[in-house]
Amino acid sequence: MLDDYRQATLRQRTARAVRRLQLDCRRLLSEKADLGGLALARQIVARLDELDDEQLDGFFDFLHRDLSPDPARALAAAQAYAELQTPQTLAELVAAAEPARQELLRRLNRVPGGTAAALRLRRALFPLLKDRPELAGIDADLLHLLSSWFNPGFLQMRRVDWNAPAQLLERLIQHEAVHAIDGWDDLRRRLQADRRCFAFFHPQLGDEPLIFVEVALLPEMPDAIAPLIDKASTPRQPDRFKVAAFYSISNCESGLRGVSLGNFLIKTVAQQLQRELPQLKRFCTLSPIPGFARWLLAEPDFAQLPGATRAQAQQLSAARAVLRERCAGDLGALQGISRHEHLGDEGRAALLQLCGAYLALLSPTPQGDPVARFHLDNGARLERINPRADLSTKGLRQSFGLMVNYLYDLDKVEDSHVKFRQGQVRHSHAVGTLL
Amino acid sequence: MLDDYRQATLRQRTARAVRRLQLDCRRLLSEKADLGGLALARQIVARLDELDDEQLDGFFDFLHRDLSPDPARALAAAQAYAELQTPQTLAELVAAAEPARQELLRRLNRVPGGTAAALRLRRALFPLLKDRPELAGIDADLLHLLSSWFNPGFLQMRRVDWNAPAQLLERLIQHEAVHAIDGWDDLRRRLQADRRCFAFFHPQLGDEPLIFVEVALLPEMPDAIAPLIDKASTPRQPDRFKVAAFYSISNCESGLRGVSLGNFLIKTVAQQLQRELPQLKRFCTLSPIPGFARWLLAEPDFAQLPGATRAQAQQLSAARAVLRERCAGDLGALQGISRHEHLGDEGRAALLQLCGAYLALLSPTPQGDPVARFHLDNGARLERINPRADLSTKGLRQSFGLMVNYLYDLDKVEDSHVKFRQGQVRHSHAVGTLL
Amino acid sequence: MLDDYRQATLRQRTARAVRRLQLDCRRLLSEKADLGGLALARQIVARLDELDDEQLDGFFDFLHRDLSPDPARALAAAQAYAELQTPQTLAELVAAAEPARQELLRRLNRVPGGTAAALRLRRALFPLLKDRPELAGIDADLLHLLSSWFNPGFLQMRRVDWNAPAQLLERLIQHEAVHAIDGWDDLRRRLQADRRCFAFFHPQLGDEPLIFVEVALLPEMPDAIAPLIDKASTPRQPDRFKVAAFYSISNCESGLRGVSLGNFLIKTVAQQLQRELPQLKRFCTLSPIPGFARWLLAEPDFAQLPGATRAQAQQLSAARAVLRERCAGDLGALQGISRHEHLGDEGRAALLQLCGAYLALLSPTPQGDPVARFHLDNGARLERINPRADLSTKGLRQSFGLMVNYLYDLDKVEDSHVKFRQGQVRHSHAVGTLL
Amino acid sequence: MLDDYRQATLRQRTARAVRRLQLDCRRLLSEKADLGGLALARQIVARLDELDDEQLDGFFDFLHRDLSPDPARALAAAQAYAELQTPQTLAELVAAAEPARQELLRRLNRVPGGTAAALRLRRALFPLLKDRPELAGIDADLLHLLSSWFNPGFLQMRRVDWNAPAQLLERLIQHEAVHAIDGWDDLRRRLQADRRCFAFFHPQLGDEPLIFVEVALLPEMPDAIAPLIDKASTPRQPDRFKVAAFYSISNCESGLRGVSLGNFLIKTVAQQLQRELPQLKRFCTLSPIPGFARWLLAEPDFAQLPGATRAQAQQLSAARAVLRERCAGDLGALQGISRHEHLGDEGRAALLQLCGAYLALLSPTPQGDPVARFHLDNGARLERINPRADLSTKGLRQSFGLMVNYLYDLDKVEDSHVKFRQGQVRHSHAVGTLL
Repeated sequence: MLDDYRQATLRQRTARAVRRLQLDCRRLLSEKADLGGLALARQIVARLDELDDEQLDGFFDFLHRDLSPDPARALAAAQAYAELQTPQTLAELVAAAEPARQELLRRLNRVPGGTAAALRLRRALFPLLKDRPELAGIDADLLHLLSSWFNPGFLQMRRVDWNAPAQLLERLIQHEAVHAIDGWDDLRRRLQADRRCFAFFHPQLGDEPLIFVEVALLPEMPDAIAPLIDKASTPRQPDRFKVAAFYSISNCESGLRGVSLGNFLIKTVAQQLQRELPQLKRFCTLSPIPGFARWLLAEPDFAQLPGATRAQAQQLSAARAVLRERCAGDLGALQGISRHEHLGDEGRAALLQLCGAYLALLSPTPQGDPVARFHLDNGARLERINPRADLSTKGLRQSFGLMVNYLYDLDKVEDSHVKFRQGQVRHSHAVGTLL
Repeated sequence: MLDDYRQATLRQRTARAVRRLQLDCRRLLSEKADLGGLALARQIVARLDELDDEQLDGFFDFLHRDLSPDPARALAAAQAYAELQTPQTLAELVAAAEPARQELLRRLNRVPGGTAAALRLRRALFPLLKDRPELAGIDADLLHLLSSWFNPGFLQMRRVDWNAPAQLLERLIQHEAVHAIDGWDDLRRRLQADRRCFAFFHPQLGDEPLIFVEVALLPEMPDAIAPLIDKASTPRQPDRFKVAAFYSISNCESGLRGVSLGNFLIKTVAQQLQRELPQLKRFCTLSPIPGFARWLLAEPDFAQLPGATRAQAQQLSAARAVLRERCAGDLGALQGISRHEHLGDEGRAALLQLCGAYLALLSPTPQGDPVARFHLDNGARLERINPRADLSTKGLRQSFGLMVNYLYDLDKVEDSHVKFRQGQVRHSHAVGTLL
Repeated sequence: MLDDYRQATLRQRTARAVRRLQLDCRRLLSEKADLGGLALARQIVARLDELDDEQLDGFFDFLHRDLSPDPARALAAAQAYAELQTPQTLAELVAAAEPARQELLRRLNRVPGGTAAALRLRRALFPLLKDRPELAGIDADLLHLLSSWFNPGFLQMRRVDWNAPAQLLERLIQHEAVHAIDGWDDLRRRLQADRRCFAFFHPQLGDEPLIFVEVALLPEMPDAIAPLIDKASTPRQPDRFKVAAFYSISNCESGLRGVSLGNFLIKTVAQQLQRELPQLKRFCTLSPIPGFARWLLAEPDFAQLPGATRAQAQQLSAARAVLRERCAGDLGALQGISRHEHLGDEGRAALLQLCGAYLALLSPTPQGDPVARFHLDNGARLERINPRADLSTKGLRQSFGLMVNYLYDLDKVEDSHVKFRQGQVRHSHAVGTLL
Repeated sequence: MLDDYRQATLRQRTARAVRRLQLDCRRLLSEKADLGGLALARQIVARLDELDDEQLDGFFDFLHRDLSPDPARALAAAQAYAELQTPQTLAELVAAAEPARQELLRRLNRVPGGTAAALRLRRALFPLLKDRPELAGIDADLLHLLSSWFNPGFLQMRRVDWNAPAQLLERLIQHEAVHAIDGWDDLRRRLQADRRCFAFFHPQLGDEPLIFVEVALLPEMPDAIAPLIDKASTPRQPDRFKVAAFYSISNCESGLRGVSLGNFLIKTVAQQLQRELPQLKRFCTLSPIPGFARWLLAEPDFAQLPGATRAQAQQLSAARAVLRERCAGDLGALQGISRHEHLGDEGRAALLQLCGAYLALLSPTPQGDPVARFHLDNGARLERINPRADLSTKGLRQSFGLMVNYLYDLDKVEDSHVKFRQGQVRHSHAVGTLL
């Protein structure tokens, strides 16, 4: 009984809180576009911060139901504009078609904390989207606005080293998503003289990193991850730096999902390193191939590979047969083996060939490897596939220990990017012979 | 002959430059929303910078003709959305109704110089609008985007004093629009310990002030401008500060016309001064009344004054009659007279009464005094009308030497603003007795 | 054989290096006082940096033998000055009596790294002083110069929090001398909102802390150390802050031994906290009593205690007898006991009384407790003795677990300092009753 | 009567103020070296600031009479040290010979404002020295301490451009001592892209410049001053910069007289410009010759010129005769003539020859030209004498319009400096032929 009563009270309180917010939001929207409402916006931002899950649900309802475009008005506006295109009919069309919640968020963004509030709303929205697909319109608006607010022209790229605030360094430890940082000593090694770390920051969000990339300065293109993240290794001298290898890139703010900052970050870092260290000759990555094992174990039909000739498909089938034979029929066994000796030369070659096909042929399609698609769309070149490069459990499971280098040649990235959009993957001669 | 040939050549070159720009702009727009195009955007921004007037004309044509919404697509989208509201139909509606030039400008804004380029475009657009009203849609888009990019949450307010960079101080001298700054000595006086100057800055635009306000710290509400801008005056001690008087507010960036920053600036300054100098008891302005003389000399029909009772209209007519009599029939003579003795008590009272009516009754309408409308809409109160307050040629011509104090009571501005929108002007008791 | 040869070679090389340094030092000294020698100074600083121990030994020889005042010249100058005091005889006296190495060090200090070189020299000199007392003159000169270069007017006090560079925070972990910092988590707790850490920095030495103090903000004066350094404790809210307790102060630069910065640091911190947190009512320490156990176990003759009346001496003897009885004759046993129950009320009172006498009576003499002498000479008041306040092995061994609060009343420190110099220890009423 | 009474009162008040200061100074000196006294020092600094001239006089008396070394103590210490050199006898000698006022000033320098107070004292002392030569000892101590506090290792060199604080720029206008700055427009031109200005700052004194140098970046070594300071001239492009010409160097703080910062400033600037603009090939000055006319008009005996051979002396006499003849017997007439046509080739050559002798032969002696002595002692080379280079009244009066280039070859300055100390002036081949 009591419980029922309590829940009813809670529901009422929630309803009241959301109703009050709604009223305030409407008041804010009723202000003339260019004036007023700062105090009101500040209050709304503060109250949004205190909403619990159920209240947020109610708030999203409001955004969806009440602040979407009015179909009738939009239709009338489109008809008027179709009849006669004047600045007036255009203005009405634009106004009628834009969800009012966009303007609401823009007005909230006028006050300190507004940007952070939009990020919070989006983080809260993600888990709801699956069950409530009708809220996708809100997500689209949030993404649209955040893309504009976090455009690279407003961001600051800063180097992060051992002189950075501990508070900021702690965030790197938390958010490193590729090769976990094992405490402060590990982090310190990754920030020494032959390593670099760069991050993007937003003026409104202080020392909060949005995305960061880790770079190793090396005498040659790396073929394994372990030496790069060995915290006991000795830093190399600058005169040995020939290659800058991006070995990890991680997002810190999940509210920015879909706002692509990684591309800009990598290129801006490459430009800055080039200026700072003219001795650097190549910029490349050492990247995981997260989808390779799953793809191969799913027994794909090579004849369906986009762009694969019949001959290629047959070769790939043959390679798979060789490999399966070496694994006593169970390709999955490869996920548990860190040493590939039993595969023999032929088996190892078959593995590389299959991986080459996976990366070079599948990447232009949505089924392609996500990491490959990211770098290739950035305009990087598929440079080298490295066997036994990541012998961690995760590395073996994802890709049988294989890793790949993508090469960033800044003079060619625009061109390669255009080619990739047309379905073509640029690769090195070495990768070419694999295919 | 030669001239014709030259002009033809020039026209061709212009056409080529604009065509090339158009191609690049289309390429930039064809990029996937979240990726690529930085290098391209940089080039477009650089080339925009070099366009001459005629070329810009061509570019605006392109923005208008090619990057407005497609009427057919917009109509189809509106119909689909009217039929069924799903995230998909909504997304298509939003996409179809938004002018593509908005997205173009957003993408240019991703690179350094993009914000400045948008401002430049808008400044170049202004003089064309009169003859080519169809370009108003471009202006609307620019205003929409600039409002978002220059929202107060992104701006920094900084105090400007004699320690500020000379480069920045020079801009104040150039842009002071209310009471001209007469060289560096005058400026120095306006930055001393009993004066304040604050400006808004945008992170992308460096030390370039957007708008600034000048404040005098005084023992009482000022009733004349001359002592405030007397460069030979001696600074007062802080223990005498009781009133902060905003005596000048000027925009520095004409490309931001319509992006209202003055309201935010005044209130943020007031809050900061309150914190810094708790001894301050009042925040007010000493403001010009630029439209008063023109209005009065146009012989308005007082019966048409909004909200005026019949009795008030009669009193105003009587006051005008008194005044005219004192001027030997020529009200315009008041614009040449700095001493009001010949008006007598009655004449002076009549002048104040007419001015009170002008400000209190006309301001809620679009015909109202622009300065009055600005402050009253900000939520200020009409506090006191001061005779013989600005005896400069400009002051006499605009308002027969009268100036007005508006009072900013931060606790009441929201409320007063709402009232003003309903047509009601809050005023002091003293102003009330004038009416 | 080979070894002998090698050593001879080494000795020669050492001798050569030192000889070359000597020549350069003489050249630098021969420059006119106000001119030249910057390049030379830079070289000397660089070479000093590379000297090994034996070479440094030789360099100190040179400083001692060749750059001390010439006795004959000093005597002649003193005689001339005694006969007639003129600016000229005075100038010669000053010049003749000042060791030339002072001028050498001053000239080295003109170039980057000069200050650091002087600190390094002094650190290298310390271990030699015992066996080579004649080098004490060099130490005196170094101390004289460093005192001048590190005077508080040149130092910057900065708050150190979790936003400080990791490089700097690492130095705190290394140098904390009172209550060791157990890794980054422990450090983070000590920098949270109810803790403060402040350090002095020198403009020439960048982010290198010279000395730092740790402060806890508390609702009342603390009586035990464990809660203050409990890394799992929850930060308190600012409205609970009534007392600022200095619980640790540590030097980071041993080359500054004898340059007293702690006094200035504590007082500057107290002033800053007072400004920042007006709710703070008291500034005190929670301090160890490092000499108490050793003193008591050495069976002092209480009649010899300075300022002790005969009656006091008898009471102290009686107290010791009680205590000894409770420990079965072995006072040393107290160093192993963290719980004092078996002492009974009488035994615990006896222990406090003996400690009170140790602190209040012995402190003005050079045999006094060093920590007590530091705070009392700073002008602090002996406020409260806390039993069972530090139950760590070190705390029990040094002082049977007792700790003491010294109170900093900024209005009275000057006065108390003067009194302390006259042999008088200011204490609270509570401590008075102990005596 | 009244006046006498008033004066007596004033004298008493002065005496009281000085007596109180004396007591405080003694108290401060009685503090143990490393402790206490900060509050006291702060008070003394504040009170020093308020002393009027007569009171300062009394204070200097005190510094001289009471805080000079005690002759008897100094003699005893020197005798003890002469007998046996131990760290103890040395320490006593050093202590006994150092004026106690040095320690007083060092302790005052511990608090904010202490450095500024020492500078003020010295500025106040200068005008007294002529009539009270016994105060020279105080000046020596102040100079000694200020040299140490303003050593280049503590100073910051900063570029000053049009972005510098107006407050700082105003100081340049005030203190430019060589070629007066004619208002803000003139200053702006001197800070544009083909000009540079650098100044030294002291961390304790904020944005107060101590000394600044103005540099012009030019395609060739300049032969006249007018084009360099022409405010209407157009800035040159960086690709034309071949020569950096120092055309003005001015001190801003007279309290630093005798603390030579100019040498360090010129060389540090040259190094920085070399790094920043590798296209620069030469660093030179365009300098006045302030003593030339006075020297020549005083009819010097050329046979007495140091290092002049008999033949040279005869040539110089002949040159003077030629010149005098061209001036109708009155060499002084040259000071009024800006065009040298009437001198004829022979007369112009004679003038250059005499100037060459003045600079090359007289400079190593104290009678030499002060500007020449400064640059030559810095290690610059006498490069070229330029006729009709400064046609201002001052330029004609000082040196008949002649100016000189000194060349700074950073690789040779040390060597040239040593040579100059030995009496030898390095000069170009061109100057050699003049001699």
